[in-house]
Amino acid sequence: MTQKIAILPGDGIGPEIIAEAVKVLHALNLDLQLETAPVGGAGYEAAGHPLPPATLKLAQESDAILFGAVGDWKYDTLERALRPEQAILGLRKALGLFANFRPAICYEQLVNASSLKPELVSGLDILIIRELTGDIYFGQPRGRRTAEDGHFPGAEEAFDTMRYSRPEIERIAHVAFQAAQKRSKRVTSVDKANVLETFQLWKDVMTEVGQQYPDVQLDHMYVDNAAMQLVRAPKRFDVVVTGNMFGDILSDEASMLTGSIGMLPSASLNDKKQGLYEPSHGSAPDIAGQGIANPLATILSAAMMLRFSLGHEAAAQRIEAAVQKVLAQGLRTADIYSEGTTKVSTAQMGDAVVAAL
Amino acid sequence: MTQKIAILPGDGIGPEIIAEAVKVLHALNLDLQLETAPVGGAGYEAAGHPLPPATLKLAQESDAILFGAVGDWKYDTLERALRPEQAILGLRKALGLFANFRPAICYEQLVNASSLKPELVSGLDILIIRELTGDIYFGQPRGRRTAEDGHFPGAEEAFDTMRYSRPEIERIAHVAFQAAQKRSKRVTSVDKANVLETFQLWKDVMTEVGQQYPDVQLDHMYVDNAAMQLVRAPKRFDVVVTGNMFGDILSDEASMLTGSIGMLPSASLNDKKQGLYEPSHGSAPDIAGQGIANPLATILSAAMMLRFSLGHEAAAQRIEAAVQKVLAQGLRTADIYSEGTTKVSTAQMGDAVVAAL
Ligand SMILES: CC(C)[C@H](C(=O)O)[C@@H](O)C(=O)O
Ligand SMILES: CC(C)[C@H](C(=O)O)[C@@H](O)C(=O)O
Repeated sequence: MTQKIAILPGDGIGPEIIAEAVKVLHALNLDLQLETAPVGGAGYEAAGHPLPPATLKLAQESDAILFGAVGDWKYDTLERALRPEQAILGLRKALGLFANFRPAICYEQLVNASSLKPELVSGLDILIIRELTGDIYFGQPRGRRTAEDGHFPGAEEAFDTMRYSRPEIERIAHVAFQAAQKRSKRVTSVDKANVLETFQLWKDVMTEVGQQYPDVQLDHMYVDNAAMQLVRAPKRFDVVVTGNMFGDILSDEASMLTGSIGMLPSASLNDKKQGLYEPSHGSAPDIAGQGIANPLATILSAAMMLRFSLGHEAAAQRIEAAVQKVLAQGLRTADIYSEGTTKVSTAQMGDAVVAAL
Repeated sequence: MTQKIAILPGDGIGPEIIAEAVKVLHALNLDLQLETAPVGGAGYEAAGHPLPPATLKLAQESDAILFGAVGDWKYDTLERALRPEQAILGLRKALGLFANFRPAICYEQLVNASSLKPELVSGLDILIIRELTGDIYFGQPRGRRTAEDGHFPGAEEAFDTMRYSRPEIERIAHVAFQAAQKRSKRVTSVDKANVLETFQLWKDVMTEVGQQYPDVQLDHMYVDNAAMQLVRAPKRFDVVVTGNMFGDILSDEASMLTGSIGMLPSASLNDKKQGLYEPSHGSAPDIAGQGIANPLATILSAAMMLRFSLGHEAAAQRIEAAVQKVLAQGLRTADIYSEGTTKVSTAQMGDAVVAAL
């Protein structure tokens, strides 16, 4: 049966990197139907909204979404509801994409690109699992009002609500423990239970669910300490599970540590295994249109898509092996270039992956 | 006029490191009255509460507080309200200590102790200014309840309230801009205005207050990006100002980057310049009682105290110069020891600073 994929290139370098991933998907000769739609700033230009109804409908009807990146300074002055990043928040919410997988892997060939000393990152392979549809990102009520109490009663104030329910925590906990069972059987749950009610419940539920996975070792860490330990000794982590807000911060910190951020894919799944796949890096409007962006994170996101949403494990592995091969051949886009390697363009990199398949 | 200082050693290595700072204060021959009281786990042992009423009263009546550290695993099973860290939250709230100063300095002699490559941290000198009495740390309402809406209506949920009022943001903004005027005249305000109402107001108010400081350059950065840029290129920052929650995470990340966390002091001030001074590191119960902890962060916190709360700038500088001198002499506690330097105990380090005054 033909599987349908929504291709949402977005803004900045999005269209360029997506084009290479699409090349790779075509080269695999699978029974896939790819359909493209505008999103982010491009959605606003085309239809007056970062997530046009037709784009949302396409996403909902597809088996998976391959997403480029959204955002450009030129939309900074729009009201919040129309800014590009609302597209990604809207998709997460509408499709219930609660489980975000963000691997932080240090590619051996790129070890020297890390800010960290090589011995601290060589062999690094962390999987950060971020809850993606709850927490303070979506909690109501939120807004502006006149403060009734606090330090300055009567003053204007803004507020948001952090919240997690027990089943929301349970389902992401199961995702994390099951992921750990396929890896080194260790989960670190990151919270701030010493200050926040929300994360005391988080910690309690993680502990409870953990009892159903006696083969997995669970430890708890405060978010401030986690931000430190990631810098000090990142290899002590294997699977890290945390909430939406802390996950936003820690997954970006971890991916930057690797020196490989141009290489890191991500997946956001719902309970039907429908998923949105996108590179961990942003839309980089400063280098858009120059043909120098690194398409590998997007190509590896397509591999994750084949694995998690489309059931094509063999094809996923072919892509991953091909990426290893082009790296071994010494091909590098500008962001990962170093002396002694061969600098290639976005399209040349895509072509090389296709050739290596 | 005699100035009164509350000495709160706390738990773990707290008493050992405080003892050395007290030695240094005595050696300065200033007109100071030092009075000691139990706090944290020690407060709980002595009086059944981490912040006993007598300790709070002493703190309130003092010109400044010199604080060691609190926390020990043995209190992990106590109910939250009785755990050691409530002491520090209670002191911040009761004294209105809204402005937290956390320098992240890489000491030239310790450049190799950083996880980061030397060229990225050599000369690093960031000042993180964290708002300390607002945000989700203290926002009401908070608690547990049955969810009325969201993904699982009817389920148990926990929630917290993030909030900032305009005057709360204004006063920390002035602190940041004024600090920047004495430094390189650059402020980075860290927010998450793309998602949170609270931090849209934060960003708006920072921009407004910034107009009163035309000599200071203000830029805005999302918290996830800040967590990345700290790893990638920490020297691009000078003064960083942010809210309580983001500040907790970023200041710990930044201090760990330096490799000098055993050396970093901190100050928390209210609008009367009353302040609480403490090392940036924790209570390290694993090495408590062994006489190996590094007292320099606490000694440098005492210097900050003399400068900010007690008006003894010259004495503060004498301490700082003495610390530089012992480092230049090659003296090192275990945490910062490297080959070719001389390993000393906590007390020997304190004695060396006194001798160098
Ligand atoms: C663009 C923004 C809303 C988004 C987030 O905060 O989740 C981004 O930072 C991410 O991590 O995907
Ligand atoms: C102990 C804890 C409540 C505290 C905080 O979160 O503020 C600590 O992490 C700090 O940064 O001083």
